[in-house]
Amino acid sequence: MTDPHTPTREDRFSFGLWTVGWQGVDVFGGAVRPRLDPVEAVHRLAELGAAAVTFHDDDLVPDDATREQELARFRDALAETGLAVEMATTNLFGHPVFKDGGLTANDRGVRRYALAKVLRNIDVAAELGARTYVLWGGREGAESGGTKDVAAALDRYRESLDLLCAYVREQGRDIRFALEPKPNEPRGDILLPTIGHALAFIGELEEPDRVGLNPEVGHEEMAGLNYAQGIAQALWHGKLFHIDLNGQHGPRFDQDLRFGAGNLRGAFWTVDVLLGAGTGRAYDGYVHFDYKPPRTEDMDGVWETARACMRNYLVLREKVRAFRADPEVADALAAARVGELAVPTLGDGETLADLRAETHDVEAMAARGMHFERLDQLAMEHLLGVR
Amino acid sequence: MTDPHTPTREDRFSFGLWTVGWQGVDVFGGAVRPRLDPVEAVHRLAELGAAAVTFHDDDLVPDDATREQELARFRDALAETGLAVEMATTNLFGHPVFKDGGLTANDRGVRRYALAKVLRNIDVAAELGARTYVLWGGREGAESGGTKDVAAALDRYRESLDLLCAYVREQGRDIRFALEPKPNEPRGDILLPTIGHALAFIGELEEPDRVGLNPEVGHEEMAGLNYAQGIAQALWHGKLFHIDLNGQHGPRFDQDLRFGAGNLRGAFWTVDVLLGAGTGRAYDGYVHFDYKPPRTEDMDGVWETARACMRNYLVLREKVRAFRADPEVADALAAARVGELAVPTLGDGETLADLRAETHDVEAMAARGMHFERLDQLAMEHLLGVR
Amino acid sequence: MTDPHTPTREDRFSFGLWTVGWQGVDVFGGAVRPRLDPVEAVHRLAELGAAAVTFHDDDLVPDDATREQELARFRDALAETGLAVEMATTNLFGHPVFKDGGLTANDRGVRRYALAKVLRNIDVAAELGARTYVLWGGREGAESGGTKDVAAALDRYRESLDLLCAYVREQGRDIRFALEPKPNEPRGDILLPTIGHALAFIGELEEPDRVGLNPEVGHEEMAGLNYAQGIAQALWHGKLFHIDLNGQHGPRFDQDLRFGAGNLRGAFWTVDVLLGAGTGRAYDGYVHFDYKPPRTEDMDGVWETARACMRNYLVLREKVRAFRADPEVADALAAARVGELAVPTLGDGETLADLRAETHDVEAMAARGMHFERLDQLAMEHLLGVR
Amino acid sequence: MTDPHTPTREDRFSFGLWTVGWQGVDVFGGAVRPRLDPVEAVHRLAELGAAAVTFHDDDLVPDDATREQELARFRDALAETGLAVEMATTNLFGHPVFKDGGLTANDRGVRRYALAKVLRNIDVAAELGARTYVLWGGREGAESGGTKDVAAALDRYRESLDLLCAYVREQGRDIRFALEPKPNEPRGDILLPTIGHALAFIGELEEPDRVGLNPEVGHEEMAGLNYAQGIAQALWHGKLFHIDLNGQHGPRFDQDLRFGAGNLRGAFWTVDVLLGAGTGRAYDGYVHFDYKPPRTEDMDGVWETARACMRNYLVLREKVRAFRADPEVADALAAARVGELAVPTLGDGETLADLRAETHDVEAMAARGMHFERLDQLAMEHLLGVR
Repeated sequence: MTDPHTPTREDRFSFGLWTVGWQGVDVFGGAVRPRLDPVEAVHRLAELGAAAVTFHDDDLVPDDATREQELARFRDALAETGLAVEMATTNLFGHPVFKDGGLTANDRGVRRYALAKVLRNIDVAAELGARTYVLWGGREGAESGGTKDVAAALDRYRESLDLLCAYVREQGRDIRFALEPKPNEPRGDILLPTIGHALAFIGELEEPDRVGLNPEVGHEEMAGLNYAQGIAQALWHGKLFHIDLNGQHGPRFDQDLRFGAGNLRGAFWTVDVLLGAGTGRAYDGYVHFDYKPPRTEDMDGVWETARACMRNYLVLREKVRAFRADPEVADALAAARVGELAVPTLGDGETLADLRAETHDVEAMAARGMHFERLDQLAMEHLLGVR
Repeated sequence: MTDPHTPTREDRFSFGLWTVGWQGVDVFGGAVRPRLDPVEAVHRLAELGAAAVTFHDDDLVPDDATREQELARFRDALAETGLAVEMATTNLFGHPVFKDGGLTANDRGVRRYALAKVLRNIDVAAELGARTYVLWGGREGAESGGTKDVAAALDRYRESLDLLCAYVREQGRDIRFALEPKPNEPRGDILLPTIGHALAFIGELEEPDRVGLNPEVGHEEMAGLNYAQGIAQALWHGKLFHIDLNGQHGPRFDQDLRFGAGNLRGAFWTVDVLLGAGTGRAYDGYVHFDYKPPRTEDMDGVWETARACMRNYLVLREKVRAFRADPEVADALAAARVGELAVPTLGDGETLADLRAETHDVEAMAARGMHFERLDQLAMEHLLGVR
Repeated sequence: MTDPHTPTREDRFSFGLWTVGWQGVDVFGGAVRPRLDPVEAVHRLAELGAAAVTFHDDDLVPDDATREQELARFRDALAETGLAVEMATTNLFGHPVFKDGGLTANDRGVRRYALAKVLRNIDVAAELGARTYVLWGGREGAESGGTKDVAAALDRYRESLDLLCAYVREQGRDIRFALEPKPNEPRGDILLPTIGHALAFIGELEEPDRVGLNPEVGHEEMAGLNYAQGIAQALWHGKLFHIDLNGQHGPRFDQDLRFGAGNLRGAFWTVDVLLGAGTGRAYDGYVHFDYKPPRTEDMDGVWETARACMRNYLVLREKVRAFRADPEVADALAAARVGELAVPTLGDGETLADLRAETHDVEAMAARGMHFERLDQLAMEHLLGVR
Repeated sequence: MTDPHTPTREDRFSFGLWTVGWQGVDVFGGAVRPRLDPVEAVHRLAELGAAAVTFHDDDLVPDDATREQELARFRDALAETGLAVEMATTNLFGHPVFKDGGLTANDRGVRRYALAKVLRNIDVAAELGARTYVLWGGREGAESGGTKDVAAALDRYRESLDLLCAYVREQGRDIRFALEPKPNEPRGDILLPTIGHALAFIGELEEPDRVGLNPEVGHEEMAGLNYAQGIAQALWHGKLFHIDLNGQHGPRFDQDLRFGAGNLRGAFWTVDVLLGAGTGRAYDGYVHFDYKPPRTEDMDGVWETARACMRNYLVLREKVRAFRADPEVADALAAARVGELAVPTLGDGETLADLRAETHDVEAMAARGMHFERLDQLAMEHLLGVR
């Protein structure tokens, strides 16, 4: 009998090299851990039960001089472990050249360099088998109103995405792009700050079908938004291409806690939405963690956090399934008339004139309780393991 | 010589009846001011220099018994003062029947009643000349994850909007709809919580051209978002149909302060975007205030706040124009390379292969200062009136 | 065998009459539920397992005309059920006379009326057996900087507290006062906005021993502060006289959710601190809930939320005890050197000169991992019920 | 005739070496500017009109090998320019040894090293003439509830402060300590998170008169608190020993913008409180800026921000004085009954029994408007320079 909370490849867990590899540099202090060799990361994550890794160009090949050698070692590690590369992305934020952004920097030379850097890494990503290419525009933004022409910036963002889509199409590559919104930090205000803004932007592209989202728990919660509700809207638009799971305590600096830490009830509903929320429209991609092991941890602590991210997901998945299968929950859902929302407001064949001719017993409708608290308490008791 | 900060009809200022008419009921206390007769509101706002008023059905005609009489008195007041009705909206949040929302209530009967209530008021709005019809879905949302099927709710929202668009089209009415996003309050999490989410949603409608946004300063700032940047994106999508100006102090309860109070630097950049931000893509609608005179004020204080909203806008408009006309600002914009962002990243006739063949002096680009602080300080000095 | 999560009198749960009695009036809508007779509240709460009730003067005796009759009925209900009155407080926020506050209103006449209102209700509270008298200064504050002289306001607050302390001392009453901080809502900025500000203020009173705190979960979390850490500091000062448990989702409007909803991990650590956090310095008062059953609920839903507040507390209490008793947790606490913080930094008999003479292997100390994540994961697994 | 907005030594402006010297390392990217020699910083700040500098030990003497030489060069620069050192502080956050804090680290060895590091730098500070010694405990805190025993941590914090106070007393040094609160970042939750918590803590020390506060604008605003109100309370307690001026946009990461940027209306009221808010209880220390020139700036931009901090202060000081001197403001203050709050609520010789015997015309008092908006609008017009 296996522990249901121990991950297997079938669970499709994935980690960024930069997560377990984070050395702990922040605004107020230096590195607390040594550089982690990507090859070691691959082996350790494989042992822990992960199915895939993801990377920024600079995580994997920080130095052109050793580029081919590092790529070869990495390929070998993948082959030895069976781990996949499912997603890749470009570091357009670390080097000082990107201090005003990459694809929307005021400086055209920087934009050209940024675009070339993305293209170069798409080739690596494609060669390594990644099918999702993420763009997180952490430095695309401004600290003050006059310094960034937002319309021009969105024009340039669109230009870049259109060029990138054309590139992968022309190369015949099976790659989709996923935008990762964030409201602020490190820039004062970042362009495309939420799931919504990025979804809207995609609608203006030449190849909107090739572009979707990679929403991160903490980024939405930094704006006080409900992540589960946000990804439900992304799924509704058919745009939940990828996810970044982690933990956060509301509007403050980007905490990047392990999944489950922070807003635990939010994590339950997040898994519920990913599994289809009882309605069938589920997320079918890798379960990707994007977090930072706190600076207090040595490497043992780092691996503990990686293990815990997966374990917490599996625990929550089990609880969500039990919640959705519980007959008392079915009763509570019915009492809360949740299913009734799937019924069109206007009846089949009915006209607005018909609807307007109807009389409404407003006071009687107003008096009906919705019984939402009972339903939510049942969810809480599944989460707490007391049902 | 006239005071440049005294409003005239040409400034196209507009107020909701519910703003100066707010009686001060909140979660913790009762009314502090008597009901304001809409007729008196019209006369006082006209005297103060406003050009238009807006209304919820329940503001204007709270009681069916006196409906025609109240409408007639209101029409007379408009005729006497020359004030326009430029926008109208439906109260789908005040009555307990809407405790779980209107157009996305789980209860289908409530949704039908809500839809009928909107249709009825669209007829009034059209008859009074309104060309914008706002939908603020303040009760469309949930306090907990399981109680609202977000995908079904968005289906119902879309169904409603599609029906409403078809209705005004079939009636031949020159009315556009404007969605007003809000992240939370009075519901725990409101559907379409930001400008971005609402823009994305519009893309899924049958008649997207008929639907745009009515973003409110405070609502975006409650999510820690930059309002000026948000409406700049809305303008970029061609969707800034209407605006709600007021003041707020970041993530907390909805303060609805008079315009200028709260985030004053944000107000400067808001006016800058509305005037076109030096780039020509300007807002051309009414300048509408949606705020609540604090409970500390008697009716004299209420009129003082209405006067101040308009005056602050005119002061800021003058300062923005001076900022954009200042030769030193032109120098600073050039030094900050703001205009360079309007130049496409890829040259005319250039290919990605050409771009990739280029070599980049990354360190030299990284060393260039952006001079953003100088530009922002110039803006601040215009704002402070010390240039 | 009894359900360990069903409350008994020994658990000392207490509810404000205004919690289950909240009718649902908010800024955007009217009452959704009928007035709840305090006598019915007493009977229902007793049946559910509560041990005590608390009240504002206006909850219990809204009308002078029926005052004695209502008090008699209430006394009878207490006698019949055995419920205690453990705390009382004054409504200094509901009536428009308090629109600028009560004890710190600019208007001296209002301050005098407020003080008289408090005194009158202290007499009732004392007669009904309350030993804690709470002051929540929700309207003590300002929307703008010039309108409130903060130093004078603190002088008046101090004057009021000094007078109230003298009054109960002179009357020989066994009553202590508890200040309830809140950062904002309904005022823009409230005086004594956090646990810390109120603790500091108490230090300036004539009888500081007679005054402590009544911190509310949601109020601290509205400022993004950690409630468990805040009440731990209050306990350290010997000032945790009373508590208000509920739920909140970070900086936004005051949600007043049932206990457990909102920040569930925070609720676990809150109960841990109340029980002494493994260190023995525990809270020994009533476990008081101050929340608002959502407007979506009818009276059945209201009682469901009251039941759930107590049940969630009992579930968390059981989990906290299991966490603190778990040998693996003891190991993890040792690995995290948590107990080492109780050892004075300077040794017994040691001087600073001795300490300065010591050499430090800084790099070795820097390399030690703290193993905090393992410990936190163990807590999470107790919370989730998977250990 | 001199420009009233150009600083002179009499204005007593002061800058941390780490402000203009910030190289731009953040969580997401590396240094954008070269190291700034403290000697150059002194000369440039002197030229710009500053009166003093402040430092962390590691800013000034990063390396023991060159310690005496660097101190000598620094002393020479001070002598040449006439700049004072008015405050100093210890870096207990940068080195990985402080990853769990300094004075409240779980690891006793770390605490001992931290204490020795503080003592060593107090000697330097005293020798250089600093009279204020700041303690910012940015790493004193935790990411999770079980890992830090808050009561033990406060015991250790108190032990450290008591030892430091005794040290400077015994050395006969004219130095006071100033605690700098912050709610979070870089730790998840920092001990003594606000002005209030730190004030309360000071009350438990052996020598409370020797310890006060150094509140920073952005730190309080990260908790959504009103900085001007916070320092007004600190002044009321006699504890505003020092200030850190900068700019912030509410709850989010620590932005450390130049003074004036961020919440400009808040900056106006901050200066008003520092000048005594019309009541005479003013701040009399140095006007110290603690900010970070954005990464977009080269060194020219850095000096621009330093210049702008001082200029904005002087502009606001002039406006505040004009506001307080304006006869119409005097009228508005009277109409708002602001001065009436200085009158004790209980009359001279009056008893509570007298007060309770009084009858109150509650409805008449409730009907009085407070006229706060008129007063606030006058302040805004002074700020905008349109009066």
